[in-house]
Amino acid sequence: MAYFDAASSAPLHPVARQALLAALDEGWADPARLYREGRRARLLLDAARETAAEAVGCRPDELTFTTSGTQAVHTGIAGALTGRRRTGRHLIVSAVEHSCVLHAADAHEAGGGTVTRVPVDRTGRADAAVYAEALRPDTALACLQSANHEVGTEQPVAEVAETCCAAGVPLLVDAAQSLAWGPVEGNWSLLTASAHKWGGPSGVGLLVVRKGVRFAVPGPADERESGRQPGFENIPAIVAAAASLRAVRAEAAAESARLRELTERIRTRVPQLVPDVEVVGHPDQRLPGIVTFSCLYVDGEALLHALDGEGFSVSSGSSCTSSTLTPSHVLKAMGVLSEGNVRVSLPFGTSEEDVERFLSVLPGAVASVREHLHTPAARTEAAAPAEEERVIDALGKRCPLPVIELAKIIDEVPVGGTVRVLADDEAARLDIPAWCEMRGQEYVGEEPAEVGSAYVVRRV
Amino acid sequence: MAYFDAASSAPLHPVARQALLAALDEGWADPARLYREGRRARLLLDAARETAAEAVGCRPDELTFTTSGTQAVHTGIAGALTGRRRTGRHLIVSAVEHSCVLHAADAHEAGGGTVTRVPVDRTGRADAAVYAEALRPDTALACLQSANHEVGTEQPVAEVAETCCAAGVPLLVDAAQSLAWGPVEGNWSLLTASAHKWGGPSGVGLLVVRKGVRFAVPGPADERESGRQPGFENIPAIVAAAASLRAVRAEAAAESARLRELTERIRTRVPQLVPDVEVVGHPDQRLPGIVTFSCLYVDGEALLHALDGEGFSVSSGSSCTSSTLTPSHVLKAMGVLSEGNVRVSLPFGTSEEDVERFLSVLPGAVASVREHLHTPAARTEAAAPAEEERVIDALGKRCPLPVIELAKIIDEVPVGGTVRVLADDEAARLDIPAWCEMRGQEYVGEEPAEVGSAYVVRRV
Repeated sequence: MAYFDAASSAPLHPVARQALLAALDEGWADPARLYREGRRARLLLDAARETAAEAVGCRPDELTFTTSGTQAVHTGIAGALTGRRRTGRHLIVSAVEHSCVLHAADAHEAGGGTVTRVPVDRTGRADAAVYAEALRPDTALACLQSANHEVGTEQPVAEVAETCCAAGVPLLVDAAQSLAWGPVEGNWSLLTASAHKWGGPSGVGLLVVRKGVRFAVPGPADERESGRQPGFENIPAIVAAAASLRAVRAEAAAESARLRELTERIRTRVPQLVPDVEVVGHPDQRLPGIVTFSCLYVDGEALLHALDGEGFSVSSGSSCTSSTLTPSHVLKAMGVLSEGNVRVSLPFGTSEEDVERFLSVLPGAVASVREHLHTPAARTEAAAPAEEERVIDALGKRCPLPVIELAKIIDEVPVGGTVRVLADDEAARLDIPAWCEMRGQEYVGEEPAEVGSAYVVRRV
Repeated sequence: MAYFDAASSAPLHPVARQALLAALDEGWADPARLYREGRRARLLLDAARETAAEAVGCRPDELTFTTSGTQAVHTGIAGALTGRRRTGRHLIVSAVEHSCVLHAADAHEAGGGTVTRVPVDRTGRADAAVYAEALRPDTALACLQSANHEVGTEQPVAEVAETCCAAGVPLLVDAAQSLAWGPVEGNWSLLTASAHKWGGPSGVGLLVVRKGVRFAVPGPADERESGRQPGFENIPAIVAAAASLRAVRAEAAAESARLRELTERIRTRVPQLVPDVEVVGHPDQRLPGIVTFSCLYVDGEALLHALDGEGFSVSSGSSCTSSTLTPSHVLKAMGVLSEGNVRVSLPFGTSEEDVERFLSVLPGAVASVREHLHTPAARTEAAAPAEEERVIDALGKRCPLPVIELAKIIDEVPVGGTVRVLADDEAARLDIPAWCEMRGQEYVGEEPAEVGSAYVVRRV
């Protein structure tokens, strides 16, 4: 039994648990009250703020505790956009931000603002020069994550911050994935984070707004947390969040090196052990604990279930939540294969044995999913041969089936001949070009069809 | 050492603590994930929702867990106003709602909406007939608390709900103070509550939206909690909130009777023990655990400190938080004395001994504050006699000083003569008329003055 989904939520750190228990007895009262219980709660809250500010590298009065990382992002973006409304209503985000950033951008757009979504390269990394080009006189705010949550790629935050600073535009850094490992370098203006990502409890986020940044929270007034987070403070959880951040930081250097070695092992050995795999994300500029790969001809959700059956909890960008079946916007922006995607994110303290066992179990899990998918598909759905062009009718079939059928037929096509894949699953748009790239075939392009799209591939 | 401020925040119920501890181990993972830890978290969340819905008297899919009662109120009001925007932008609230409701109303007004604030009588109770009169064809939403948080007065929620229902207007009930005691009666449409008021943990609120109510949350999309509360769910706290709500409900009938007897004792004996006291709030239609009184010639904050020194933690509507010095909007709306205000709100399990000790300590505490205020004020600030009218220059003096000086001079004024009190403390506007009412003197009225206002009183 191994939990390899720390990037989603980390198990509670023992220090967080201890601090939470202690603060349940001392920190339940209203810190705005003047009596003994209120004063005790206020002391705990102030001390937690000092601790968290030290870890972030900011002044305590620049740091607000929010009720989640998402809330910190929503308030941070809305507050900066409102505060700088006179400058303009242009917002810059990278295409691979967490969905909460992108949802805030969508809401801004729906409200009449404009948004530039900066693309990333095939490793998931944004380019500081492209951020610089995106800056406009009416740019109110730019956002860039410190590191990507799905593939672990680190972003050039310090460079982008420098560029933004020179242009007088505040940069908001979503540091949710990296804050456990160290402070965010560079001259950023706003920062957000989430405690349950570093082993703190649920229910606590951080929003840092540097002095001098114009900031105005829209919505009803509230006097708690500098007016930036309405509602009664959750002090026991805040205390636990701050204590565990300090604790993970104390272990960060050693644990970082250890986990980096383990993820490097996965990066190297998965392609050796499993055929038709693409490891995605930046090879060096990456977080220590995250490694992501995609397996051709595999349904991500089925692979997740197979690994769960073997005692491994991982995440998949092919089907990242129980209610979402569209491929991950991150993999899409990178232009890499989304099918059979697996994100392994190791929590602090992951043992070498668990990683080795994962490597020993993975090939069989992938093979079983592939076998299951191949068998029925191969017999009943073979495409009819055509004169010059083969056509695969994969309408109504979910990925990876369209790619599986394409792969089966390609060897029958003469060199220079084309295959037209008719498909209406959104993921095909990403996976067919990605398959061509992996297989060295030529992706001719997408054409509109009566239903769905036609994806044309030429055999090389 | 006795904590008598349960209406602000109740100490953690033992059941909440137990449930929280258990759920820390089982409920930290993302309930949207498909692996074992995610499924376990989802089961806990679903079970907590069933429990809370049963206690509220609603369907589980009508109930959302929010991050606080304030957040529930803000989202509930914004969601109903947005959902019913086609009907109009008129909002009705009572004048004695919690500040989070009034702040949401202010924000609505600032955004171009209109707000009717329904007055209350001297007991703090709103009149259903006045709510009915306030309804308009463009009314999108009405709000009424189930019971007041400062004076304990219960509101005619079922009647107001009936009226609203007949007019096709949803009623939002802020049930923060009453949900521990039982479900809210009547045909309401939305309901909000806060777990730390019933002995649950901080960080959990409830928002119930009945099926059929038009509701659209503004702001960035998020798929958690039916799109009504963005951010990662705090499942351990949610589990503890639901478990403790069930636990307090099991004790509610017996505890209600016991606390009602204790608060009745305070209501009856405080005026016998302490001179110049006004007990405020409805004598019968009130919550079991809350009793509020105001003491003439007393600074509320000083009394709070004196009682804290004796081991009692109470709240004051004269100076209800460390950062707010204006008199409570509730006492103002009721038209009762705000000076020397004390709210006693007994937590579950309060002992009779603690209440008796409070009653034995209170007279001395009030006397000491009065003595402290009288002495310096009496000598140095006596007003100069005038021909027909005495003038007290209390400019720059905080309440209760203006009232103290008025009281000292009134006996020197011939019957039918007037006293003009010049004051610039906001509380004087409330406390001078309230003093007149208590003392049987005639309050002539307020006149504008060069600085502050002049309050004219005629000796009867």
